[in-house]
Amino acid sequence: MTDQAADHAVTVEGAEAPGRFVLVCEHASNHFPAQWGDLGLDEAARAAHIAWDPGALGLARGLAARLQAVLVWGTASRLIYDLNRPPHAPGAMPARSEIHDIPGNRTLPMAERRARTEALYLPFHAALDAQIARRLAQGIAPVLVTVHSFTPVFHGVPRAVELGLIHDADPRYATALAAEARAQTGLNVQLNAPYSAADGVTHTLARHATPIGLPHVMLELRNDLIATPTAQEAMAAQLATLLHAALPRIEETP
Amino acid sequence: MTDQAADHAVTVEGAEAPGRFVLVCEHASNHFPAQWGDLGLDEAARAAHIAWDPGALGLARGLAARLQAVLVWGTASRLIYDLNRPPHAPGAMPARSEIHDIPGNRTLPMAERRARTEALYLPFHAALDAQIARRLAQGIAPVLVTVHSFTPVFHGVPRAVELGLIHDADPRYATALAAEARAQTGLNVQLNAPYSAADGVTHTLARHATPIGLPHVMLELRNDLIATPTAQEAMAAQLATLLHAALPRIEETP
Repeated sequence: MTDQAADHAVTVEGAEAPGRFVLVCEHASNHFPAQWGDLGLDEAARAAHIAWDPGALGLARGLAARLQAVLVWGTASRLIYDLNRPPHAPGAMPARSEIHDIPGNRTLPMAERRARTEALYLPFHAALDAQIARRLAQGIAPVLVTVHSFTPVFHGVPRAVELGLIHDADPRYATALAAEARAQTGLNVQLNAPYSAADGVTHTLARHATPIGLPHVMLELRNDLIATPTAQEAMAAQLATLLHAALPRIEETP
Repeated sequence: MTDQAADHAVTVEGAEAPGRFVLVCEHASNHFPAQWGDLGLDEAARAAHIAWDPGALGLARGLAARLQAVLVWGTASRLIYDLNRPPHAPGAMPARSEIHDIPGNRTLPMAERRARTEALYLPFHAALDAQIARRLAQGIAPVLVTVHSFTPVFHGVPRAVELGLIHDADPRYATALAAEARAQTGLNVQLNAPYSAADGVTHTLARHATPIGLPHVMLELRNDLIATPTAQEAMAAQLATLLHAALPRIEETP
């Protein structure tokens, strides 16, 4: 990969952080690099939740600071390439997202699909793979946590869930975390909501955690709860405690 | 990755090959690059099956030619880093293999484990990932086939199996291939022999095929059957036919 391609694809913060947690924020940014342009979207659409997960990066950084964790985040809008989807998924370079058409994705030549895959998807996942592998080589047992946010109203329907905890093949860590969250917070906590692995949203977990049996969870915060830096910090403090507290629940079992 | 690191880790032949099959040969070579030395092994040990899969690269190249397939192969001995193992597996940099001690792996500092992981494991899997992803982006549905050989006598016990077909989570393609092999050849064909996913030998398949549902199989040939270039070519011709013939068995099912 060239440095330039990597710049568009991925930022790694705290590469040598000593903690077990590896944090990922695939939809951190609504940046549209010049080489892809604005995909024909107006400013409002580029600022909306279809372009990124508002609040997720601030939350992830707050978690990273408290967990002494590395954070791997995507630096371009998910509408150019959704890093949590494989290259053949319709949602990787979506022609439509919720109620918005994405003009710049309407008819994508194979060569352009390949170019975006090589510029964004491959460097991002190689960077994440490197962070996990170096920890494994050094005797650290990683815990993979992906950090997302969702819109309070989707297709006109309000969502009651505030904290969704989604897992790939192994439900243990997500289930333990849900128990901690219900015991310690007043949040509306739901497992595998507002969507689940069956909706294809666990690609990062399926690629990086499941093949080697890493504990994992996808955090989904309703974005009205993490709309400001202050709210992101408060939520990070709460969730960091829960993420720690849930580990013994799965690791003390014989 | 630097070019030099990549040179030690991986060779890609036929990157733009048009076929669906993606061939992998993790244990292709018994080369010991100077930076790691001979690990304290004599010439006989470095030529033995513990250092590589004799015959596998010739077979894989024969398959690649017939299937118009890309071939991704590892260019350093498996004793320096076994590319079909994650960094925390004892077998990734084994201190012992069958009846042989590996002096150069006896006490590996964490820094050296990390250095080998970064020099060999990461570039190899990134290269394979790139080959699969570019095909997915271009509308090609890859079939992942890893090519291995095993020793006819292990810990003093002769092995009857001649062609082992091993799968990760999804057994369908391996099962279909076994049916074709039994119908069309006189080989002793066994599923998940001489070992299986439970022995940790399907790491490449678990990383690259299972997360995105690719049809996959690990071919294990008894190495006395592919000891010469002529034998490798003959076996490649036979297996290429079987690999093609088995696909409709899993893809015509509604």
